[in-house]
Amino acid sequence: MKAAVLHQYDETLERDELVRYETVPDPEIESPTDVIIRVGGAGVCRTDLHVVEGLWRNHADVTLPYIMGHENAGWVEEIGRAVTSVKVGDAVICHPLVTSGHCLACRRGDDMHAEESRFPGINADGGYAEYLRSGERALIKLPPSLAPQDVAPYTDAGLTAYRAAKKASRHLLPGQFAVIIGAGGLGHVGIQVLRALCAADIIVIDRSEAALTLALECGAHHAVIADGSEVAQIKDLTKGKGAEAVIDFVGEGSSVSQGLAMTRDGGYYYIVGYGGKVEIPTIDMITSEKTIVGNLVGTYPELVELMALADRGLVSLKTRQYSLENANQALKDLHHGLIHGRAVLIP
Amino acid sequence: MKAAVLHQYDETLERDELVRYETVPDPEIESPTDVIIRVGGAGVCRTDLHVVEGLWRNHADVTLPYIMGHENAGWVEEIGRAVTSVKVGDAVICHPLVTSGHCLACRRGDDMHAEESRFPGINADGGYAEYLRSGERALIKLPPSLAPQDVAPYTDAGLTAYRAAKKASRHLLPGQFAVIIGAGGLGHVGIQVLRALCAADIIVIDRSEAALTLALECGAHHAVIADGSEVAQIKDLTKGKGAEAVIDFVGEGSSVSQGLAMTRDGGYYYIVGYGGKVEIPTIDMITSEKTIVGNLVGTYPELVELMALADRGLVSLKTRQYSLENANQALKDLHHGLIHGRAVLIP
Amino acid sequence: MKAAVLHQYDETLERDELVRYETVPDPEIESPTDVIIRVGGAGVCRTDLHVVEGLWRNHADVTLPYIMGHENAGWVEEIGRAVTSVKVGDAVICHPLVTSGHCLACRRGDDMHAEESRFPGINADGGYAEYLRSGERALIKLPPSLAPQDVAPYTDAGLTAYRAAKKASRHLLPGQFAVIIGAGGLGHVGIQVLRALCAADIIVIDRSEAALTLALECGAHHAVIADGSEVAQIKDLTKGKGAEAVIDFVGEGSSVSQGLAMTRDGGYYYIVGYGGKVEIPTIDMITSEKTIVGNLVGTYPELVELMALADRGLVSLKTRQYSLENANQALKDLHHGLIHGRAVLIP
Amino acid sequence: MKAAVLHQYDETLERDELVRYETVPDPEIESPTDVIIRVGGAGVCRTDLHVVEGLWRNHADVTLPYIMGHENAGWVEEIGRAVTSVKVGDAVICHPLVTSGHCLACRRGDDMHAEESRFPGINADGGYAEYLRSGERALIKLPPSLAPQDVAPYTDAGLTAYRAAKKASRHLLPGQFAVIIGAGGLGHVGIQVLRALCAADIIVIDRSEAALTLALECGAHHAVIADGSEVAQIKDLTKGKGAEAVIDFVGEGSSVSQGLAMTRDGGYYYIVGYGGKVEIPTIDMITSEKTIVGNLVGTYPELVELMALADRGLVSLKTRQYSLENANQALKDLHHGLIHGRAVLIP
Repeated sequence: MKAAVLHQYDETLERDELVRYETVPDPEIESPTDVIIRVGGAGVCRTDLHVVEGLWRNHADVTLPYIMGHENAGWVEEIGRAVTSVKVGDAVICHPLVTSGHCLACRRGDDMHAEESRFPGINADGGYAEYLRSGERALIKLPPSLAPQDVAPYTDAGLTAYRAAKKASRHLLPGQFAVIIGAGGLGHVGIQVLRALCAADIIVIDRSEAALTLALECGAHHAVIADGSEVAQIKDLTKGKGAEAVIDFVGEGSSVSQGLAMTRDGGYYYIVGYGGKVEIPTIDMITSEKTIVGNLVGTYPELVELMALADRGLVSLKTRQYSLENANQALKDLHHGLIHGRAVLIP
Repeated sequence: MKAAVLHQYDETLERDELVRYETVPDPEIESPTDVIIRVGGAGVCRTDLHVVEGLWRNHADVTLPYIMGHENAGWVEEIGRAVTSVKVGDAVICHPLVTSGHCLACRRGDDMHAEESRFPGINADGGYAEYLRSGERALIKLPPSLAPQDVAPYTDAGLTAYRAAKKASRHLLPGQFAVIIGAGGLGHVGIQVLRALCAADIIVIDRSEAALTLALECGAHHAVIADGSEVAQIKDLTKGKGAEAVIDFVGEGSSVSQGLAMTRDGGYYYIVGYGGKVEIPTIDMITSEKTIVGNLVGTYPELVELMALADRGLVSLKTRQYSLENANQALKDLHHGLIHGRAVLIP
Repeated sequence: MKAAVLHQYDETLERDELVRYETVPDPEIESPTDVIIRVGGAGVCRTDLHVVEGLWRNHADVTLPYIMGHENAGWVEEIGRAVTSVKVGDAVICHPLVTSGHCLACRRGDDMHAEESRFPGINADGGYAEYLRSGERALIKLPPSLAPQDVAPYTDAGLTAYRAAKKASRHLLPGQFAVIIGAGGLGHVGIQVLRALCAADIIVIDRSEAALTLALECGAHHAVIADGSEVAQIKDLTKGKGAEAVIDFVGEGSSVSQGLAMTRDGGYYYIVGYGGKVEIPTIDMITSEKTIVGNLVGTYPELVELMALADRGLVSLKTRQYSLENANQALKDLHHGLIHGRAVLIP
Repeated sequence: MKAAVLHQYDETLERDELVRYETVPDPEIESPTDVIIRVGGAGVCRTDLHVVEGLWRNHADVTLPYIMGHENAGWVEEIGRAVTSVKVGDAVICHPLVTSGHCLACRRGDDMHAEESRFPGINADGGYAEYLRSGERALIKLPPSLAPQDVAPYTDAGLTAYRAAKKASRHLLPGQFAVIIGAGGLGHVGIQVLRALCAADIIVIDRSEAALTLALECGAHHAVIADGSEVAQIKDLTKGKGAEAVIDFVGEGSSVSQGLAMTRDGGYYYIVGYGGKVEIPTIDMITSEKTIVGNLVGTYPELVELMALADRGLVSLKTRQYSLENANQALKDLHHGLIHGRAVLIP
């Protein structure tokens, strides 16, 4: 099959050919629960740039050459002998983790905390290819309204935003406030999810006027430009108290300290973005009784829920398609900030 | 002051003068936390008809003559010596229960389960009058967007629907189903609340085509005419499984057994309407693991939340105004099914 | 292998040979996730008597002859080709349902509401035998402290009591009351679980003095003899309010109406036993805001939790062993009320 | 009346007379809901030492001379005109905050987040005296089993430990682990509360062998000496995973980073002690999906719950009594680490 293969790390991201479009052997069924997917679309994620830079070298046990692509959807091409829940030809979206389902975390529904799992595109060959080896437990059948190439980025970017916003929606009551820091790829999904799942007033903070315009279109009630006065502006909008929930899709620079500062006493600060550091005296945590919540990608059932929202039109995702052959262009465009929404590679 | 006073029970509701419009002494401050309200509007409720019929004789310790009206809003006219949280002139809506706030239920936020309370319009003089004696802990200040005469019926009808729908929204996930039985005064608020608080598919059942049309305008996704095939229709819409939540605003006749039958295994059946009986073998409760939930009027904080929804335009209420002088007309119209939405008496 | 086989229904339970001890073919691996268990012990349950009586004929799709026994524990004898989480020789206890794990209920951790499942001993051959066909997803490895023959009855009787008591413990606060109706096989596990999981005052009601003595040994704080004055006695013990949680392990006769009557306003009535009927006017559900909760057997993770309690000695189970050859004696003794605790058949 | 009055800050805590035992005017009823308490006992808290040192000068609006003592219990001596829930002579324990009960936080049961409150002993005269001005909403009647001088320290130290342990108990399942860092005054209450409210395995860490011995007597299952290998020891005890809940009663030095390190992925780290700093990269919060929870003193209903545990003997508190005249001795002994349990001043 054809694939865009990573042969070499490049910290600078300046080489013309970050990945090489070439012919490689097709993936094969290895265990009875394996499923081979004909890829319909593979999302291109900032994490892929970090992989090329070599940042994940120590976090994921992978040797080059290998195939990136962890946001995948497509059609069932072949199934292992023990597979009963999908059949050849089914249109499916792939939860990013392939688990055995045997550990207690999986049995309780927290499959993204599975004791053993495979993460195609991170620690195994992924979806920058014509075919992908996934597993039965990772697959969700798509309704006719949703095409694989349109929904692929939901599996990671969308699902992470969904999980954080869903957690916040569980305690946000009418009359309360939610702040979203960062209205990019994840943030604009987060806004739509909050709108769908609760009636809180939604305030969005971003450096970019364009992002704020998109945020308001997505359903935010207030837009605040990040100019250094964010905390003061949030306090003004919340009668001096701060917001009951702050979801930080940036997670670096001043966003963490500001995010905590704009969280109301007794409120919740959700971290989704990363790169920075949480630093707060214990006395401030105690007198304010705030809670700081780390957020991972969502569970399989949560991806089912997100697909239900997409199917009903309550959440939508802006995508830009590139042919798999042009994977380098997509990576470069992402690196240079030229993609609004998410890039998707089409084999 | 002028008031519409109940002097005599009438089981038939056929007398011309169910209540008498007359002059009575003004209510006075009796305890340090009392507040006298100048009534802006008093909702007319089906319960008022039951009071006239004498049905509440044994449930509420009240002697005739007395003044009905338990859905009240208006302006603060006079305050007791210990009152600090409202001042004369404030526009307020009155939570139906006046509590001392000392019992453990109140201290935990469940004020509608208070050990001691007064319920003006039920066991004390109510709001079919120019002035009403309420208490500091019952009052919520209204935002400028909401006028007392427009919001009075939220205090009981709206708040009861809000509480039941809020409970259901806590467990309804995207892709799941909620059935609303009865799209009348409470039901159409329930639909709007569900739309605001979760992303479930909402199915409404009613005998009346007009009610179903209103239900769809309020945000229901599916309308089912009650023609005896309701259970089968719900099963069809839910892939044979039934709904995760059924909220029954009828609660009499066949609605209870049908409501239970259309509740999915592991699901919740919420009773709001009354008049009928729950009858189900224990073996059916066990094998299905269903839960049956009784629902009372909501708490004070829940009325605050409902006002936030109304203020944002997420919930609205159809009202028809009558002058207090015409209280009998309003009661008669309600009795004869001529009121769509809620009647409100204006002193 | 040897097995005690049911060849014929007997409504009277009077025939000498209810089941026939005989040689039958060994069970075989049929699907890649099957596991053959060498039975260490099989609990004898009142449901088995109902099966013999033919009561389950219409509820479970089974044809005679077949082998009863749905409370099983033992050792792994043989595994299917896709099995990875247990190995031959492991001591295991069997969750009563064998599921594929693919439906959304399983994915959310509610495996006992699985869309497809097999229930050995009810709708497939069970554990009144030397060997049993179970499935990988049903098996929990036992710690060295727990022998299969001692824990087998936890899988159904114990697990059902655990689930109901755990639900109640989620809302029972110190200073609140829990009533247990019926201190038999399930009830005495329920008492121990409540003691382990919350600090509520536990009141137990039973007709038998001996059962009440056992209840107090198990940790109940108050024992109430069922002599017709139960509701009044509970009211006395609870300052006239009733209990925040009532768990009814009887579920027939007057226990249902009494159980509801002794539930406090805003409280929860849990049904576990069956045979009777819930009958309550909707107006009483509404004014009291009570909740009625049906209870099924627990989930796989809940059986893991129960095994943790047993391993720590917080819950223990009285058993009486019979050799498999004497299965008829065990069934007869159970029928005649001669077994205190649970009978277990040892092959 | 006699009182021990703070006239002057002393950073060194070395002056002989930190407070002066002298005659001052009796407190008087100022508002209709005020209640004068005849003090039965006033707990001496490390916070009092910090007050003497002047550390709270900028946090609490107070001018010297004033009377410390924020852990109070006694008898009702006089009541304001609006007071109805207690009467003269009642034995009561005082929740540390005196609130009006009007803000939304109070109405939802979160009174310790009240918008307006008085904190006797911190920002108003406290209980190092014969009489104390408290308020109706702060008072809980004591059962005959509990004497004021024995329970006074529950109001702050005990209640804070209760709240944190109760939060953890809500998610701790049988088979899971809770770590308590610091088995001092608060920690040993925390252990007892965990034992009462859940069935988790409790591991206690402390530098002192004596504290660990006390911890085991209080019900801890494992004791770990803090010698630098704490994280490794916890990992050993938890199969390499860490604990589902870590409650840190130290909150300074290495306890914060170690506490976070020994928290399992998806687990909760509760901060109660203070003095140190939380420092953790956002990427570590995300990949581990941990939650960091700040903890304040508990609510009024939680103090009721704690009294129920004390009344049942499930929680007990070691106290050492000093006459009010010897307040300086008590403060000195606390400063020099000579008090095991809590010191209580008796007027």
